[in-house]
Amino acid sequence: MLFFTQCFGAVLDLIHLRFQHYKAKRVFSAAGQLVCVVNPTHSLKYAPTRCAAAQASTEQGLLPPCHHHEAVHDPQLVPCTCPLFSCPWEGHLEVVVSHLRQTHRINILQGAEIVFLATDMHLPAPTDWIIMHSCLGHQFLLVLRKQEKYEGHPQFFATMMLIGTPSQANNFTYRLELNRNQRRLKWEATPRSVLECVDSVISDGDCLVLNTSLAQLFSDNGSLAIGIAITTSKVHSAEAEM
Amino acid sequence: MLFFTQCFGAVLDLIHLRFQHYKAKRVFSAAGQLVCVVNPTHSLKYAPTRCAAAQASTEQGLLPPCHHHEAVHDPQLVPCTCPLFSCPWEGHLEVVVSHLRQTHRINILQGAEIVFLATDMHLPAPTDWIIMHSCLGHQFLLVLRKQEKYEGHPQFFATMMLIGTPSQANNFTYRLELNRNQRRLKWEATPRSVLECVDSVISDGDCLVLNTSLAQLFSDNGSLAIGIAITTSKVHSAEAEM
Repeated sequence: MLFFTQCFGAVLDLIHLRFQHYKAKRVFSAAGQLVCVVNPTHSLKYAPTRCAAAQASTEQGLLPPCHHHEAVHDPQLVPCTCPLFSCPWEGHLEVVVSHLRQTHRINILQGAEIVFLATDMHLPAPTDWIIMHSCLGHQFLLVLRKQEKYEGHPQFFATMMLIGTPSQANNFTYRLELNRNQRRLKWEATPRSVLECVDSVISDGDCLVLNTSLAQLFSDNGSLAIGIAITTSKVHSAEAEM
Repeated sequence: MLFFTQCFGAVLDLIHLRFQHYKAKRVFSAAGQLVCVVNPTHSLKYAPTRCAAAQASTEQGLLPPCHHHEAVHDPQLVPCTCPLFSCPWEGHLEVVVSHLRQTHRINILQGAEIVFLATDMHLPAPTDWIIMHSCLGHQFLLVLRKQEKYEGHPQFFATMMLIGTPSQANNFTYRLELNRNQRRLKWEATPRSVLECVDSVISDGDCLVLNTSLAQLFSDNGSLAIGIAITTSKVHSAEAEM
């Protein structure tokens, strides 16, 4: 009996996922973009200050320990970059992607332009929506986080990190775009390296920031669609010398 | 002696203004856009709920009293739309612009694309930066407001209002763009009518919203440059059916 109940639950989940995917496809069908439905994960470890000292060493090209391991023998080893869990893993930068896929079950999508459809925006903070994006020969980590930077006032923060070094990250530009109800919001920036830690990017506010009211204006039935594009421009072409 | 001191002060002000204008021109010289230096005004009347009931009647094409006058005899009369002062003036929509220029000294600029350079971003909330923009045969009111929606956490809100009716406003799209330090933020929307009240637009969060940290990332030496463009599109051309 329990088995049948579980089967029925699984089938319902599949139908729900299929429906969301269909809805997202309908929404973005005009652009012919790949749509990825991303379900939220309640952040189990949330320690915004754990990377405070990491940035200085990152600037010097070193690989900083994002978690405070007791002893790091090989300076080429990178800690786990998954923003969701406190994970003791460490390894070379080249195998971070396979660790994130296999251990933390983070999906990976191919394509220069994709649509990230974050579901269940109403869930309480802290909550993360995470996916990997493979594009232009590199892998990127897209993080959407709902967080109460000011108590009682949750906000949404979205950023893109390169799974690579800071100098590699400087060769790219990422764009996040929200488009609904005759309103459009675009954020363009150079991705940070995962070695710099997503927590510090979000606490600095150097990313796309949405108040709850703005997020509601852009979301459809509890889901927020974010168009993502990555290009290889070193300098923003239209940017004046500022 | 007092006269000479005042003269010296005025000359210093002029030099400071000239320097800011030169700096802004240098920044935007590539785009060949008109730059307008806008000084802040500490908001004397700040009553976020004063227009709570106004929106419903605006939707029906009526001209709502944005201030609560005791008796409005002519339904064609519009109250003063200046967001800065509690002003007892009322008159026909056609003469709102001349009232704002003459009584409230709000500058007006011509051109399809201009740059709004708001100075002294550090001033405490509530503060407003306001200008009128004449373009495509209509006048628009650009309002940048620093306000503490949540106590102790000032935010910046920028919006554009048509000095006209809501149905006229639906024919336009405005774009606000921030561009600095390899980061770009764009907001595109249909302007609201000044009859709908800027306070309600800001309290709804239906505008460009910047946290203090993001505003600092985009500002240069305490000034924030916002590129403004207005077009006559009824529907956003690239917007999918959402």
